Amino acid sequence: MKLGRLNHVGVATPSIERSVERYRSLFGAEPHGSAFDLPEQGVKVCFVDAPNMQVELIEPLGPESPIARFLEKNPEGGQHHVCFEVDDIAAARRWFEEKGARILGPTRIGAHGTPIFFLHPKDIGGVLTEIMESPKAAH
Amino acid sequence: MKLGRLNHVGVATPSIERSVERYRSLFGAEPHGSAFDLPEQGVKVCFVDAPNMQVELIEPLGPESPIARFLEKNPEGGQHHVCFEVDDIAAARRWFEEKGARILGPTRIGAHGTPIFFLHPKDIGGVLTEIMESPKAAH
Repeated sequence: MKLGRLNHVGVATPSIERSVERYRSLFGAEPHGSAFDLPEQGVKVCFVDAPNMQVELIEPLGPESPIARFLEKNPEGGQHHVCFEVDDIAAARRWFEEKGARILGPTRIGAHGTPIFFLHPKDIGGVLTEIMESPKAAH
Repeated sequence: MKLGRLNHVGVATPSIERSVERYRSLFGAEPHGSAFDLPEQGVKVCFVDAPNMQVELIEPLGPESPIARFLEKNPEGGQHHVCFEVDDIAAARRWFEEKGARILGPTRIGAHGTPIFFLHPKDIGGVLTEIMESPKAAH
């Protein structure tokens, strides 16, 4: 397998609204559409565009959200994960399984509408890493 | 000012050698040249290529290194900073100063040989952010 493009950096925030305003005023960066809920992942997300990737702002949907626990340790928010693209999510999953890398939960549909899974940070130098099938329109 | 391309994600590691081997075996990703020291920043760095950006692996050069303190809290390593490019570092510095964003130290030469500075994470949602003048060869 070959590392694909970085799709986004995931950034946890207590308030997407305040973070969007910060990115707009400091960086002249605009959100890519409105924030939307991913209830099965317990988060609300909003993408902000940079020229070659996006920042995914992630806000907890409730106290049970995994992001709520992250924000307990990092009340102002912070870097949560990185997401790299692959051509074929099933082939990528088999690859990482064969390598003995731990995968967190089942393959599921991510914020971009394509299948994703997460690799355990302990197998990648402490970096929580999302693997995402490239959107077909991008090819 | 307008957010430029993401140049790299900075990842702290206790061992660049082990991290490079991990990126190679898990992701088929190769380092962009050898690791090298940045003594005035107290770190050794090595860049690993992804198609649209790089991962900057950062290892402390000694116990006084800022990365050594990061690794005390995150012994396996982890996401340390993100780095976005700008066309003109002096104009960018003035921009952020006018906006009241705190800048950490003077503008200096970074790992790519172009001027850089760091913005305080508290002003950007907990994300330590490096601002880097684009290498001229990239234009």
